[in-house]
Amino acid sequence: MAKALKALIISADDFEDTELLVSYYRLKENGVQIDIASMKKGTIKGKHGYEIEANKALGEINPDDYDMLILPGGKAPETVRKDKDAVRIAKSFFEKEKPVSAICHGPQTLITAGLLKGRHATSYKTVASELKEAGALYIDKDVVVDGNLVTSRQPSDLPVFLKETIKKLNEIKK
Amino acid sequence: MAKALKALIISADDFEDTELLVSYYRLKENGVQIDIASMKKGTIKGKHGYEIEANKALGEINPDDYDMLILPGGKAPETVRKDKDAVRIAKSFFEKEKPVSAICHGPQTLITAGLLKGRHATSYKTVASELKEAGALYIDKDVVVDGNLVTSRQPSDLPVFLKETIKKLNEIKK
Repeated sequence: MAKALKALIISADDFEDTELLVSYYRLKENGVQIDIASMKKGTIKGKHGYEIEANKALGEINPDDYDMLILPGGKAPETVRKDKDAVRIAKSFFEKEKPVSAICHGPQTLITAGLLKGRHATSYKTVASELKEAGALYIDKDVVVDGNLVTSRQPSDLPVFLKETIKKLNEIKK
Repeated sequence: MAKALKALIISADDFEDTELLVSYYRLKENGVQIDIASMKKGTIKGKHGYEIEANKALGEINPDDYDMLILPGGKAPETVRKDKDAVRIAKSFFEKEKPVSAICHGPQTLITAGLLKGRHATSYKTVASELKEAGALYIDKDVVVDGNLVTSRQPSDLPVFLKETIKKLNEIKK
């Protein structure tokens, strides 16, 4: 049997509940092992009150242990993007061209990491201007795929966001 | 190209947000057309505050128009089960052996419709006793599949609940 793929979700308090949870459950459905990392270990709480355990602290993450990075939205990315380890991890995924899926405010961490210059991407509408300032080629579309990068705008895009994310998973040869 | 499959979700206010939304997004990912029916048309609101449009009233539903029935949980099924059209619809799906997936408190509507006698099923733990009284063979397991019927206990079971639900979809020949 093939070795299980591993995904890392980075988030924090005030995550957009469905963007994190729908992605989490969808990857689990496909047998993916998932770690959730935040500034520190422990329960994080979504904007709508759902709680989930961040079983890892960002500082202890070795990105080489993971096949895929997921960046859900909400208000969490405003905090996550300020964390030097979150930036370090995102850079590593891009250097190694491993799949990164970011939705809503999720791309903000990639902006801070300086990873979107010349890349086709989308985001929540209020993030569009800073995405463009960061040199991204912004497209107002439910899902944008550019190489290793899958981006979407909002919760209602989750079906196509996850369809493309699962495609990226299926391309990974273990 | 094959004709799109159609699913019906029956719910009401105080639905368990993830049980409805994760199922809804998952079916959409597979190109399934979905109607959401409640006692009357209009916005219904989850326990955690998510809102979704019930685009159909139960009274106008012809079950023959649908390939699959989804019954999410929360407090909604307590209301739904009292609706004679919800009962009529559930009975029709069972008579024609079409897939029915119910999670958490979702099976309560099937109990009221008298459809679980002799069937293997699970539910949220607090529903177990009335499930047994209705003649179901209750099993405390993340997912139980018995013929057309897929049941699960709670939100954390969503990955296996949806895996089995998608399997049922894939068995439908159009």
